[in-house]
Parts: sequence; C-alpha cells; structure tokens
Amino acid sequence: MEHQLQHTISLLARTPAVLDELLRTLPEAWTRSNEGKNTWSAYDVVGHLIHGERTDWIPRVKRILEFGESRAFEKFDRLAQERESKGKPLPELLDEFARLRTENLTMLRALNLRQKDLKLRGRHPSLGVVTLSQLLATWAAHDLTHLHQISRIMAHQYRDAVGPWSKYLGVLHCAGHSA
Amino acid sequence: MEHQLQHTISLLARTPAVLDELLRTLPEAWTRSNEGKNTWSAYDVVGHLIHGERTDWIPRVKRILEFGESRAFEKFDRLAQERESKGKPLPELLDEFARLRTENLTMLRALNLRQKDLKLRGRHPSLGVVTLSQLLATWAAHDLTHLHQISRIMAHQYRDAVGPWSKYLGVLHCAGHSA
Repeated sequence: MEHQLQHTISLLARTPAVLDELLRTLPEAWTRSNEGKNTWSAYDVVGHLIHGERTDWIPRVKRILEFGESRAFEKFDRLAQERESKGKPLPELLDEFARLRTENLTMLRALNLRQKDLKLRGRHPSLGVVTLSQLLATWAAHDLTHLHQISRIMAHQYRDAVGPWSKYLGVLHCAGHSA
Repeated sequence: MEHQLQHTISLLARTPAVLDELLRTLPEAWTRSNEGKNTWSAYDVVGHLIHGERTDWIPRVKRILEFGESRAFEKFDRLAQERESKGKPLPELLDEFARLRTENLTMLRALNLRQKDLKLRGRHPSLGVVTLSQLLATWAAHDLTHLHQISRIMAHQYRDAVGPWSKYLGVLHCAGHSA
C-alpha cells in the first residue's frame, strides 16, 4: 500500500476516540499497570502521544517546509511524559491528546500539501535524509505501534490468570519490541 | 494482577466501541488488507470475534456449569468467519459484534457468579482441565490479542511508506504470533 495522505489523516483522526473508548473509565488495574521495571503503562503511553503532538510531528513537517535538509529535526524526548503527565488524571490526558490531535490535523489540512510536496526532504538527527511522505506515514504507524503496545501491556496483566490458554494467545508471546 | 470478574467485564464491555471507532468509516485500504497469503485482514478479525461470541465463550461457561470436567468443550472453528461474514459490509459486522457482546455480558451478569464458582473446572479438548476463572480471563485477553493483531496488520500496510523509520516502529518487528 503506497502512502496516501488521505489514508494517513483518516487513521490519525480516529486514534484519540479509540483510546478514549478503551481507557477513559477502565479500572486503574488495567491502565496504570506496566510490564515490569522501566516499562510503560497505558497511562504513560498516552502521555508520550501528547508529547509527540506538541514537539514531534507538526514541528518536523514545518522544519521540512522551511529548511529542507539543511537543518535537522530536534531530537524527540522519549521520557518527557514522566515530567509532563505528573499528577494528571487519565481522562485529562485523553482530553488533551484529542484536542492537540484535532489542532494538528487542522494545521496539516491547511497546508494543503500536493503530491509533489510529499517528496520534499528533511534531515532526521539519526536516520539522515527522510521525506515528508515518510514522516507523515510514520505519524500514523506510530499511533499503531502504541495501540499494539497498549494491548500487549494490558494482556500482560492476565498472563497468569489465563492459565494454559497463554499458549494460544499471540499477544503473550510478543517480545515487546515497542517498549 | 489476579483475575477479577469485574475487571474482565469492564474490558469486554469496551471492545466493540473501540473497534467501531477504529474501523467503521476507515478506508478499505486499511480494513481489507492483510499481511500476505493466508493471513487475516481487520475485517476477518471482526468476523472471528463474532463467531467467538456465538460459539465459544458463553457456551463454554454453560458447559462448565452444567457438566464440569465430564464433557469437553466443542472445538472452536477458527475459519468460520470465511463462510459467515461473506458479503457483509464491515459496519454490519461491527453492529453484530456489539449486539452479541451486549447479550453475552447480560447473560454473564445474570449468572451472578461468586468467587467460589470461578474455581469450577471444565475440560478443554486440547488443553485439558481449565477453570471458569481462566476461561473468563482468556475471553478478555483474546480481545486484546486481536486488537494487537489488528494494529499490526494495519501498520504492515505502511511498512514501505515509513522508509528508514521502520527501524524504530516496534509493531513492524512483531513476528505475527497472533496470526
């Protein structure tokens, strides 16, 4: 499947409601538990997604449009949510994520990107040259990697409870590549 | 985390709305694509979940309550959705899944299971003796294994589109243990 901006926007627009339905009123035993020392809970993942909306995706789109390859993106702080989410209840984080995502998609649509703009190039601090198309596809795939992670974190809480069925439940055999 | 019936019901009650928000109006490029020959699309997974509501979870609960270990569960047909979903649009499947799940949770609540009932034992045709508690925990974890799978199937569609970022996206390194 080739990258199509409309498909990317379709998916990006849905993620806040998906996480809202899954997490907003779920017991904290599900949302605040993690996979062990130095791993994230679903709560932590929502904080990470918020930080991405603030500092990663749209700022990088703008950097490409303004500076092309001449100025690399800022590095992304993968631990920022530990400071920024502190003390906030999960429903507040879900509201914040939904609001920021809506704002960012409004901004993205307003840029009115054409097919040829998607070929514009920028510079990632570690990966080197990347295209605007790759950046936008990654924004969507990044939502999916964290939905994948949240379902794995939550399933982990029932690892013992399922008894011999653990053998058949693929999610319990996932090596945690998105931790 | 020990198995708690209320936690299990909390999660089971949310899954239809989660899948609805994610899939109902998403382009078919996302929902009908799979991970290659003999693998499932998100559409196929919803059909599989419907078949589970019809033939797996509640029928097995009843089998344990009526027959204990003396009569094994019926085998589950993992390919039934190929026949049963045929020709149905995805929104119809999502409606059907939501309706069946609501009915099944109403039935489960009406059984008014007590802590000691959860220790009752039944017989799985391959796994042998299992408890009612393990069966119910598996129902919830099974939802999560398929949410994990759907996010992986969809991310797969952008495997090439993300370019060098594929390295950082855990979901693209998942070995597909829930296929």
